[in-house]
Amino acid sequence: MKRFFIELSYFGKNYHGWQIQPNALTVQEVLDEALAKLLKHPVQSMGQGRTDTGVHATQFFAHFDTPVELPTEFFKALQGNLPIDISVQRIFEVHADAHTRFSALSRSYEYHISTHRNPFQNDLAWFIPYPLNLEKIQLGLDMLVGDQDFSSFCKSNVVVNNYRCCLTEARIEVLSQKLVFHFSANRFLRNMVRAMVGTLVELGREKISPEQFQQIIFAHDRTQAGASAPAHGLFLTQVTYPSWVNPQIFSHEID
Amino acid sequence: MKRFFIELSYFGKNYHGWQIQPNALTVQEVLDEALAKLLKHPVQSMGQGRTDTGVHATQFFAHFDTPVELPTEFFKALQGNLPIDISVQRIFEVHADAHTRFSALSRSYEYHISTHRNPFQNDLAWFIPYPLNLEKIQLGLDMLVGDQDFSSFCKSNVVVNNYRCCLTEARIEVLSQKLVFHFSANRFLRNMVRAMVGTLVELGREKISPEQFQQIIFAHDRTQAGASAPAHGLFLTQVTYPSWVNPQIFSHEID
Repeated sequence: MKRFFIELSYFGKNYHGWQIQPNALTVQEVLDEALAKLLKHPVQSMGQGRTDTGVHATQFFAHFDTPVELPTEFFKALQGNLPIDISVQRIFEVHADAHTRFSALSRSYEYHISTHRNPFQNDLAWFIPYPLNLEKIQLGLDMLVGDQDFSSFCKSNVVVNNYRCCLTEARIEVLSQKLVFHFSANRFLRNMVRAMVGTLVELGREKISPEQFQQIIFAHDRTQAGASAPAHGLFLTQVTYPSWVNPQIFSHEID
Repeated sequence: MKRFFIELSYFGKNYHGWQIQPNALTVQEVLDEALAKLLKHPVQSMGQGRTDTGVHATQFFAHFDTPVELPTEFFKALQGNLPIDISVQRIFEVHADAHTRFSALSRSYEYHISTHRNPFQNDLAWFIPYPLNLEKIQLGLDMLVGDQDFSSFCKSNVVVNNYRCCLTEARIEVLSQKLVFHFSANRFLRNMVRAMVGTLVELGREKISPEQFQQIIFAHDRTQAGASAPAHGLFLTQVTYPSWVNPQIFSHEID
């Protein structure tokens, strides 16, 4: 039995997120069907985490196990069996203990806000026609960085062991017609980036003060924070792994 | 009666091009309805030219005449009455003789080719997974520049006075995962950019030689050239006008 990582990117508009669920099309379902067809055995891939309905990924990792030799030109064949809004970037063999979810060291997300009406960004950014106070948003971002409890930004009813995340990056990039939030952490809670962005936008619109923003973080209560930013502005952009996952012995990519 | 230019951009996917036609939604129809609603009289705007079904525009000009004073906050009101895939960039009064089509000095188009499978470019570029010989394409581009008869690249059955165009720019820009063709001319014939790009791609794939490409230009016969490149990679990007169109007296933009 060998284990392989697949690096994917996908445009999330037409999918109910990554994870298989009844009565709704997901990226995992489409991928598993394409893998099963080529490998001629059922496949249940494992993703590095969930993404919500409509969220995009420019880098997403899934792994699968197979007892059979990969057919020749497997990469091309897989690409050809996937719809055009899902793309395989790489396939490579990994250490048998490597796990896309549990071995991951960090995840990075971007959240895109379109500050000008742009017909070409409708599915790729949240359009906000109001002025935002970027200095206040920066104060909020500074408060988010660090190892702390993020339960104020976690979807309600989600039960996890703990709500601590180590947020190593929280910054805003100002482009000519766009604002891009960058977040990196060891882990993210469900809905966390969208809840943080929604609340930061309220700070930028001066509906809440920086002091209130700090109180929201300390409250550990999702009902205190702002509404979630819409899914179509969110991109999973990077997942990092330790080097043992893909040591020299497995360093070749699958053609 | 005053004349106004509107600068627009639009994502072409959902429209049968610019020009009004029966039984198909066009950008002109949507714009005219929004203008009529705000001005309270019927409006038939005039565009700088046609665009085909599915073609995009980052800069398109239309003009309209009105005997009434523009309502306050007309720009915002018009924006609010247009769907999100059509955006008004500017509205400004012009000289009464200014005409978006006949006064235009030049038009520029871009044609986008995606060289890597990219889930985010499906509606915005032609995906070509085959290698292209860029040196040969450059030879073809050089042959296109100049004032000559372009009937080999004009949609059949289109009757015009003459097929001469002065092509002042024909170049290719190489980006990391994209090729972008840039074309500028005093005028373009129907389907001309897409026919040129389709034929240049055959040159790049070495299905025809540079000599054959030259013969196609000289043949003045549309059946000699290659298939049209698909509409969704084409963008109208710029239309230029002489300064008298918008002299100092009219230099204010409409809010």
